[in-house]
Amino acid sequence: MSTTATDVHVRDLLESYRRVRALTERLAAPLEPEDQVVQSMDDVSPTKWHLAHTSWFFEAFLLRPFLAGYRSLDVRYDHLFNSYYETHGRMHPRPRRGLLSRPTVREVLGFRGHVDAAMVRILEAGGRDRDETAEIARRVTLGLNHEQQHQELLLMDCKHVLGSSPLRPAYRDDLATDLEGDRDSSGGAPGWCRFAGGIHEIGAPAEGFAFDNERPRHRVLVEDFELADRLVTCGEWLEFVQDGGYRRPELWMADGLARCREDRWEAPLYWQRCERTEGWSVQTLGGPRPVAADEPVVHVSWFEADAFARWAGARLPTEAEWEIAAVAAPEPRGGGFLDADRLHPSPARPRRGASPRQLFGEVWQWTASPYVGYRGFQPLEGTLGEYNGKFMNGQYVLRGGSCVTPADHLRSSYRNFFYPHQRWAFAGLRLARG
Amino acid sequence: MSTTATDVHVRDLLESYRRVRALTERLAAPLEPEDQVVQSMDDVSPTKWHLAHTSWFFEAFLLRPFLAGYRSLDVRYDHLFNSYYETHGRMHPRPRRGLLSRPTVREVLGFRGHVDAAMVRILEAGGRDRDETAEIARRVTLGLNHEQQHQELLLMDCKHVLGSSPLRPAYRDDLATDLEGDRDSSGGAPGWCRFAGGIHEIGAPAEGFAFDNERPRHRVLVEDFELADRLVTCGEWLEFVQDGGYRRPELWMADGLARCREDRWEAPLYWQRCERTEGWSVQTLGGPRPVAADEPVVHVSWFEADAFARWAGARLPTEAEWEIAAVAAPEPRGGGFLDADRLHPSPARPRRGASPRQLFGEVWQWTASPYVGYRGFQPLEGTLGEYNGKFMNGQYVLRGGSCVTPADHLRSSYRNFFYPHQRWAFAGLRLARG
Amino acid sequence: MSTTATDVHVRDLLESYRRVRALTERLAAPLEPEDQVVQSMDDVSPTKWHLAHTSWFFEAFLLRPFLAGYRSLDVRYDHLFNSYYETHGRMHPRPRRGLLSRPTVREVLGFRGHVDAAMVRILEAGGRDRDETAEIARRVTLGLNHEQQHQELLLMDCKHVLGSSPLRPAYRDDLATDLEGDRDSSGGAPGWCRFAGGIHEIGAPAEGFAFDNERPRHRVLVEDFELADRLVTCGEWLEFVQDGGYRRPELWMADGLARCREDRWEAPLYWQRCERTEGWSVQTLGGPRPVAADEPVVHVSWFEADAFARWAGARLPTEAEWEIAAVAAPEPRGGGFLDADRLHPSPARPRRGASPRQLFGEVWQWTASPYVGYRGFQPLEGTLGEYNGKFMNGQYVLRGGSCVTPADHLRSSYRNFFYPHQRWAFAGLRLARG
Amino acid sequence: MSTTATDVHVRDLLESYRRVRALTERLAAPLEPEDQVVQSMDDVSPTKWHLAHTSWFFEAFLLRPFLAGYRSLDVRYDHLFNSYYETHGRMHPRPRRGLLSRPTVREVLGFRGHVDAAMVRILEAGGRDRDETAEIARRVTLGLNHEQQHQELLLMDCKHVLGSSPLRPAYRDDLATDLEGDRDSSGGAPGWCRFAGGIHEIGAPAEGFAFDNERPRHRVLVEDFELADRLVTCGEWLEFVQDGGYRRPELWMADGLARCREDRWEAPLYWQRCERTEGWSVQTLGGPRPVAADEPVVHVSWFEADAFARWAGARLPTEAEWEIAAVAAPEPRGGGFLDADRLHPSPARPRRGASPRQLFGEVWQWTASPYVGYRGFQPLEGTLGEYNGKFMNGQYVLRGGSCVTPADHLRSSYRNFFYPHQRWAFAGLRLARG
Repeated sequence: MSTTATDVHVRDLLESYRRVRALTERLAAPLEPEDQVVQSMDDVSPTKWHLAHTSWFFEAFLLRPFLAGYRSLDVRYDHLFNSYYETHGRMHPRPRRGLLSRPTVREVLGFRGHVDAAMVRILEAGGRDRDETAEIARRVTLGLNHEQQHQELLLMDCKHVLGSSPLRPAYRDDLATDLEGDRDSSGGAPGWCRFAGGIHEIGAPAEGFAFDNERPRHRVLVEDFELADRLVTCGEWLEFVQDGGYRRPELWMADGLARCREDRWEAPLYWQRCERTEGWSVQTLGGPRPVAADEPVVHVSWFEADAFARWAGARLPTEAEWEIAAVAAPEPRGGGFLDADRLHPSPARPRRGASPRQLFGEVWQWTASPYVGYRGFQPLEGTLGEYNGKFMNGQYVLRGGSCVTPADHLRSSYRNFFYPHQRWAFAGLRLARG
Repeated sequence: MSTTATDVHVRDLLESYRRVRALTERLAAPLEPEDQVVQSMDDVSPTKWHLAHTSWFFEAFLLRPFLAGYRSLDVRYDHLFNSYYETHGRMHPRPRRGLLSRPTVREVLGFRGHVDAAMVRILEAGGRDRDETAEIARRVTLGLNHEQQHQELLLMDCKHVLGSSPLRPAYRDDLATDLEGDRDSSGGAPGWCRFAGGIHEIGAPAEGFAFDNERPRHRVLVEDFELADRLVTCGEWLEFVQDGGYRRPELWMADGLARCREDRWEAPLYWQRCERTEGWSVQTLGGPRPVAADEPVVHVSWFEADAFARWAGARLPTEAEWEIAAVAAPEPRGGGFLDADRLHPSPARPRRGASPRQLFGEVWQWTASPYVGYRGFQPLEGTLGEYNGKFMNGQYVLRGGSCVTPADHLRSSYRNFFYPHQRWAFAGLRLARG
Repeated sequence: MSTTATDVHVRDLLESYRRVRALTERLAAPLEPEDQVVQSMDDVSPTKWHLAHTSWFFEAFLLRPFLAGYRSLDVRYDHLFNSYYETHGRMHPRPRRGLLSRPTVREVLGFRGHVDAAMVRILEAGGRDRDETAEIARRVTLGLNHEQQHQELLLMDCKHVLGSSPLRPAYRDDLATDLEGDRDSSGGAPGWCRFAGGIHEIGAPAEGFAFDNERPRHRVLVEDFELADRLVTCGEWLEFVQDGGYRRPELWMADGLARCREDRWEAPLYWQRCERTEGWSVQTLGGPRPVAADEPVVHVSWFEADAFARWAGARLPTEAEWEIAAVAAPEPRGGGFLDADRLHPSPARPRRGASPRQLFGEVWQWTASPYVGYRGFQPLEGTLGEYNGKFMNGQYVLRGGSCVTPADHLRSSYRNFFYPHQRWAFAGLRLARG
Repeated sequence: MSTTATDVHVRDLLESYRRVRALTERLAAPLEPEDQVVQSMDDVSPTKWHLAHTSWFFEAFLLRPFLAGYRSLDVRYDHLFNSYYETHGRMHPRPRRGLLSRPTVREVLGFRGHVDAAMVRILEAGGRDRDETAEIARRVTLGLNHEQQHQELLLMDCKHVLGSSPLRPAYRDDLATDLEGDRDSSGGAPGWCRFAGGIHEIGAPAEGFAFDNERPRHRVLVEDFELADRLVTCGEWLEFVQDGGYRRPELWMADGLARCREDRWEAPLYWQRCERTEGWSVQTLGGPRPVAADEPVVHVSWFEADAFARWAGARLPTEAEWEIAAVAAPEPRGGGFLDADRLHPSPARPRRGASPRQLFGEVWQWTASPYVGYRGFQPLEGTLGEYNGKFMNGQYVLRGGSCVTPADHLRSSYRNFFYPHQRWAFAGLRLARG
């Protein structure tokens, strides 16, 4: 096989492959084996399940179809670690992931090593022809982006597991902290950034990696709008709480109010009121600490974000508005994301220039937009077509990435999505009006 | 009080009031008292609850605020017959409406008479000043449109109650039947009507009655599209069934597939397979009868409609596309609706002209559009603000009215909405593409 | 067919048949049709279901097997009105009895008439031979006793239906009331009646009608014991409530405490605290009225009765103890039961003699005895074997009959049974010690 | 403090204390940390929870009240590891035990060491006076018996955890195996042992350790009866299965049939049918293996045992019958129990003599007796009164101990108890008749 441009490209992926795979294991390392088994609610997966499932992905979509003579470490893993690919075969039921004590963490790491060794072979050899090599490159790239999504999920999920414990353990006690000197200490209301309406284009261009749900790039009509120049803060959220925000029906969607009552929401997830002082503390990946007024609020549901916006006399931005503003923002995008190793959103920096701050890498920002396919949306072919398309119902789009998202995973056109009642994502909000 | 233009207007409402109120009672009349008590699922309300709740609406929003000296027949009804107005006060829980044997049907009719007598006084007298009179007129108009919605609900609900019975009783056995001679007997695929893209306006104009959710009228950008020139038929649906449509994961939203499996959907609601002949019958308000291939399919969920469209290589139209086509269609809208007294959708007539057939008055047509507020949406003031706005989450828009919708209740801008799993509405679909 | 002793006996049953059947209809008569449809919880059956099921019993076990040429009014009733006879065939699910609006009350009464007419023929003609005639006589007797059980159930159930309504309607407003002059006004603690231990016999003798669960008559060993000479009163229960009885774990079975918390028990079923006066009212079949201190407490679960007895430093009697005392009591059994037409338990009369008062016909008395088969228990043959035997698990025995039990239905050996959490029976308690 | 007889007794307990505590840790040792976290159903507790709770017992009832200056390792453990002592304080909810990843196994072992060190001090020093020393001795003895119960629970529970895994891992692969040479190879029906009726005494005598529920010793009347001379075997159970035993309503209690259908029982828990060969395998603590016809059936519910007995034309023995037979049996009791290190019941040995075989240490034997307090039952004082008494409702008594019960934990008067639907205990049955 001669070395072609595409072969080179596949071999180039080796470095990315090693880097991404290693990071996943580094993220799990601070956890005890016991922490890696527990499933604290149906939405959460155990850490070791994430470690295994991301390897299953490479096995199912790369090794089985493309590596001649590949032997699985244990054929039963194909069933255990399939997440939701119905056309791939029946799977272990999601709510029962936490009942699997085996394979152990050590065994799962062995599975990862087994898959990695085989993946190195495939990445070094490429496919039998150009087309196959290109397909391999596409799938590896997808697999790495998939694994990055699970890096964020792993942190969301272990935060929930640890946060479910009355002992409130920290995930790590050596996290980077905020630069106190560079906080916006003005303390007042946000400023507003104006954007002109008209026909814009949004979505990912046809070239380069993007998820299928970001395409096709297409025209949208927006009217003039304004975006708040920073995220909603804990201080503002506290006012909402104290103003009875969680108990005033006129602020809420009917389904949101029902959920709020049923689950007895009184504040964001992970906030806890100290019975003695009546102050609020918040559980972070670095352990519990007092709620800081200037930090962005995080771990709120869409229902709460929507009610807050109504209370504030504003609204949530649409995803088109957000993307138009994000594309217009000057580089750099700021120093947040997983890469900053803070694992908690930071306060806004002082204002510099007219652009919205905190667009990226602090908290996922709920939008007013239900998650639907763009006009002309085409899912991937075959089983991978289940990746995104079948979830385009009942959820809302979030934009911008969070403090637990790898920086190189995020694009301005990136569409995250959750159900409106879900709170365990690192989700907050930015107000819009107009 | 002098007779002003507005007074005249209020008095004019008297005729409408009497007509609408009488129709509700006429719709209930064929039912036995026993039929009017049962709540066959949480979504369904007993007939007598509809009879009472529509009267409660006038009492709560007209008689109590505007009729000096008004005395309620029973103060506890204010609690029992409040549907969902949280800011009005706590209400009897919806899933327990079927546990109320009292007040009896006779007593509820007495309540209706009591309210009607008081409403006549208010409609004859008007308000204390122009503004109040105008407000009364607005609310009465809203109340009558509200009652028309409950006329449709009453029929949907009693169809479900009767359909839950193994005895499969008919609601009436004297319903009007289809004109056999005027059916489209071509039997082939639908034709397609092309519409040009661009910036259009949709929504209700500021003048005249419309629900708050139809406003404001606003600009939308649509690309070129095509609409099928008739509704999807039972014959086509049968092909979908026979092609394994209910068992093929690649056709379904993930939530839809879960619901399909849990509730064991195999065909539209009210279809029943004859174990002997393997043919299908369908329960109608006129009793059971064989499924007719050329009739529009009805009582399918959005999940099913969406899966069908994917199977058919097409998609559901957006609500903007539907409205653009509907506005462009020539009068008359056709002879369906409740007024035709068929209470079941009719086959398409033979093609005449280039416009889509069956746009109105046969089945509500599911659209691809999540039900959200139009940009700039303003709910009504006060408690009536809960009428529509708080449901703008998790549901889909349906358009066109059905065979159990009063004809004068429907507008091209009318937005109906249901959750994607709900099947008991008279909902079907029309395909789109492009 | 010659007239034999058995024939005479069958014909004698005609009078009983007519009397019992007519009483059932008389008990339903005060109810509106709407009242007769509702199923207010899974345990409750609609009135018209009772009317139909008791007729189904005669159809299934007498008319179908023994009346040549019998034609059912509607073959589907055989499915709809089978209660729990698995070996007879699949049945309409119990929790869905309240969804059946049809057959209507009128139609059900028609079904009763249809069955009655056929039953008269069978009762007049007898069987084809002696054995068959004897079997018919046995089954008719069982069917009438079965119907008497449903007379009590009908009243229990419609009390629950009416009691579920915020309107708190009365079943009748012309009920007999207590004879004020003959109440025990002493107001103090109960007296105690001593009984000597030893080997006793309990259970029904082999001759005469009794349910299978009362047999065989057998030996039991009891130690010396004492029974309170009257039932526990509402006044005593109120002390229990005020002493925190419902919140003290040490008084309760673990399962009882869980149920108490889950269902938020704070007092007997049908008690309601007046928010204004803090006094208690109780819903009766005659409507709401203040709780009377000297009346027997009723509508308590076994869990509550057991906790009360522990609180009182006593215990519940075993069923053997109760039966020994009952057999020893002098006639008459007192003037309670359904026949007194009070439909609510009455205060004890003044003490006369040494025997326990209120043994019969006021409230069913919970015993400490789990409901199990007597040693050597034989269920009836065939499908009727499901009558009692299959319920001999997880329930407790109650003795004595209540104010809604027909007097001629009750025997000293009669064993009623309910689950320990059930409260809608007319159940109270009498203390024991020793 | 002078050395008194009681002091000596306390110090004697030191040896037992060390032995029992060490065994618990030895039982947990073969498990991975991951195995020790999982709670595979509400009834199951994680291994590390057992390790911690048994230590909590000594802390709560010995160290806190009697060891001056005792400091807990972590005050929050008092909440986390309280099982069900309501009067001790609120506890971590049972169904959420599997959500606790912390304390880790290592930390729990540290907690055990902390408690053990303090217990040694208390056991060496005794109490401040004779009474206190006696109370300490009583509670330590109870604590050790309590820990032995949890040794069995630990094995039951980890069997369920491992058995929930599709990987079917073994707990240990070095278990002792049956002595093939000493099996009863006759293969026929069981023999029957006759016992004469009359007034007997059962229950534990006042002296010596026994649980409160075994007292007081009291008189019972039994009639003549027969007991099968061995346990019901898997071979016999297979006949029941093949005869449709799980699908024949006439064999079942109504509640049992409902459970059987809901949970789709078709065979004992841990049996699995091989799809290829149609043979049955069974999951044991030593891993999966073929079902052996001559082994006692185990892991059946009371509902199944009761249905089997009815199918076999026999019945379950009462607990009095069982105890009378057990007391009459000659020593030794046989070589089963946990001490045999087989952890699975063994086939009967060949008949020698007239006594029933396999009375002890193979499988717990369901009896026909609901678990109620003996007449005159007195729970322990204070919080320990919750140990047994509050569960005397809705459960059935089992007798004889199993292959995972420590031999010195069992007495002829020992009463174990489970709900009739529970299957994860090592429970089987022996037939009775007469």
